[in-house]
Amino acid sequence: MASATAGIGPNDVLLVFLPDRTAPDADWITRIEGTYPGLKVRLVSQADPSTGQVRDVNSLPAEVWDGVTLLVSHWPPRTTDTKVFSYAVQTTIKPKTTLPNLRFVQVPSAGADRWIGHETFQRPGVTIATGNGTHAPQIAEWVIGTWLMARHHFLQFAAYMPTGNSWEHRFDYMGEDSTNTRIGILGYGAIGRQVAKLAAAFGMEVYAYTRSERSTPESRADPDTYCVPGTGDPDGLLPSKWFHGTETDDINKFLSQNLDLLVVATPLTASTTKLLGSDQFAVLDQSRTGNLRNGKPKPKTYVINIARGKVIDTDAILHALHNYQISGAALDVTDPEPLPADHALWKAPNVFIAPHVSWQSNHMRERLLGVLELNLERLHAGKPLVNVLHKELKY
Amino acid sequence: MASATAGIGPNDVLLVFLPDRTAPDADWITRIEGTYPGLKVRLVSQADPSTGQVRDVNSLPAEVWDGVTLLVSHWPPRTTDTKVFSYAVQTTIKPKTTLPNLRFVQVPSAGADRWIGHETFQRPGVTIATGNGTHAPQIAEWVIGTWLMARHHFLQFAAYMPTGNSWEHRFDYMGEDSTNTRIGILGYGAIGRQVAKLAAAFGMEVYAYTRSERSTPESRADPDTYCVPGTGDPDGLLPSKWFHGTETDDINKFLSQNLDLLVVATPLTASTTKLLGSDQFAVLDQSRTGNLRNGKPKPKTYVINIARGKVIDTDAILHALHNYQISGAALDVTDPEPLPADHALWKAPNVFIAPHVSWQSNHMRERLLGVLELNLERLHAGKPLVNVLHKELKY
Repeated sequence: MASATAGIGPNDVLLVFLPDRTAPDADWITRIEGTYPGLKVRLVSQADPSTGQVRDVNSLPAEVWDGVTLLVSHWPPRTTDTKVFSYAVQTTIKPKTTLPNLRFVQVPSAGADRWIGHETFQRPGVTIATGNGTHAPQIAEWVIGTWLMARHHFLQFAAYMPTGNSWEHRFDYMGEDSTNTRIGILGYGAIGRQVAKLAAAFGMEVYAYTRSERSTPESRADPDTYCVPGTGDPDGLLPSKWFHGTETDDINKFLSQNLDLLVVATPLTASTTKLLGSDQFAVLDQSRTGNLRNGKPKPKTYVINIARGKVIDTDAILHALHNYQISGAALDVTDPEPLPADHALWKAPNVFIAPHVSWQSNHMRERLLGVLELNLERLHAGKPLVNVLHKELKY
Repeated sequence: MASATAGIGPNDVLLVFLPDRTAPDADWITRIEGTYPGLKVRLVSQADPSTGQVRDVNSLPAEVWDGVTLLVSHWPPRTTDTKVFSYAVQTTIKPKTTLPNLRFVQVPSAGADRWIGHETFQRPGVTIATGNGTHAPQIAEWVIGTWLMARHHFLQFAAYMPTGNSWEHRFDYMGEDSTNTRIGILGYGAIGRQVAKLAAAFGMEVYAYTRSERSTPESRADPDTYCVPGTGDPDGLLPSKWFHGTETDDINKFLSQNLDLLVVATPLTASTTKLLGSDQFAVLDQSRTGNLRNGKPKPKTYVINIARGKVIDTDAILHALHNYQISGAALDVTDPEPLPADHALWKAPNVFIAPHVSWQSNHMRERLLGVLELNLERLHAGKPLVNVLHKELKY
């Protein structure tokens, strides 16, 4: 049996279970098998060959799992009778595949909460790495794009297009530019750092919140997370103020910093579940009292969630939107997810909801293979991997 | 009579005709009158006191114009029987006010085409300065915002919100991020330079097009245009390639550079009127042939116009949109303007049209007063002003 630090070789099977558009091609497989002689790369499409629909990882035939030591998959396979998350539901599944020789899992997504409850995660010989960082450029664009859309009222003007009467409404909305506004980034990982880079270019002041204290230059750097070259804030130089903690008072202090924009970019863990509840929206509301020079009330904080829906209490944000505790929200993720068609959140004022798509990018394939190749190299050399899922912190 | 270079003093009347939200307050007037003893500041609201609607500059009573030497106004007053532009129409107006002592006009807008046909423009003793640069931050945000909205399909997902069924369509659109894309900026003035700054932060390659050649570091800098501190590319360091010229071949060469995004940021002059016609859209189309690695056709160039509607031939862009010569367009300006409610452009595929609002900003007032104050200082000191409208180039 291959150990976690041994070189990659004849004892290894790399099973890649991905959508076609992000899967490696034959040239890549040839190159990787050439780099690690003896390694067998097994490519299985997420698309069901008969229907073209996304198929459940547990519907794969048993022989696909034979001898797998290295795995790329969004979802954990059926190994023990345990609870796992899929996008839609939390289910208890029955054991089917135990993957006795598994030693490395590359999860393509930035959040790996689907793997946290899985027995392989706590197995000592298994290292699970996320796709953290590979999604940062596009998700940061989604954040800045929805922020600009709200501030410049694109959806309002688009709504007049069918009747062609927007000219009558041109002074109904005042565009608000981003210079001298303040962004609070809750979770200063790969995505948060790229959001910071873009926000800084727009003249925004960056406040960062992290779980643990980052008081030294070393602690502010993030060498263990994959960073797409030329992006982000790998050295942690952009925030003008840092906040941290795990207590309600800590988060409330951060939320009271008169933020124009709050970006939720924290992993979903037990301690971040419903991190933003009704008390937190009240804190945001209170932080934005007073009027602008023109006598109009200062706009409340705009909230963007590109992390996981469960970080925000849905009832609380629904109340916050209806009562203008916040000026609006852009939610790529919701709780529940998918959001039922008749859910009240769809109709809340000043909300934009997308169906968990901010990670999409025409560059996904190259970035995902980039982090996978880097981790294979490091695994082969016995070096620490990037994006390792911490067994204690669970992110 | 005050000369163009004399200090500001008792012979001067500064008439400020602005919307209330950008007009100076009493403190500002006190401060400016204190800075230039003898100067009289006369503040007149663009809002009609009885109706609250925007009033025509020519409806102002004659006494408002008495002794005016310094003027802040979007529109030229009736002075000679000549053609002037308003937003809506080009009209021939009869003389009413001749403003014999006028020596300086501060136009708030970046484009001063409304003043070009006016007799005061060619009068030797009159210097007309634009609001060039004061709008760059918000217009650049409008450009990047509409680009991100198109690339990340925000309007498509927003359209599913009323029925709450976007989840079914989450794989219908592939987000395309901006890293390694190429932006062509037609007109590298204040707005173009701030667009470049933002685009560069997103990892885009910047190509610039200017009327005259910019082959030296000195020629690439732009010291005569107002630049909001901390914004733009005042030294012209961002473009990786520069293009220039006034001939059709010159512009076509620029348009053939395989641009992902074309931003029209050129002033409206005789030579830029209908600069982009059917031949130019054919050139853009031809530059984007071939397929992506996944076999799908490469998306055509996306076009954004925040300059003046007349720079683009409306019939030509309508044809280009319907025939997918371009992948889409975001138009803050149109020709005609306002665009009639029944105009075919409203229903063209992949178009976003706004009613000439990209200049709007909650920072307008401070920026406009910033450039006005700088020009008053320079006028008083006999120094060259910023944003001077060239009598020959007419921009």
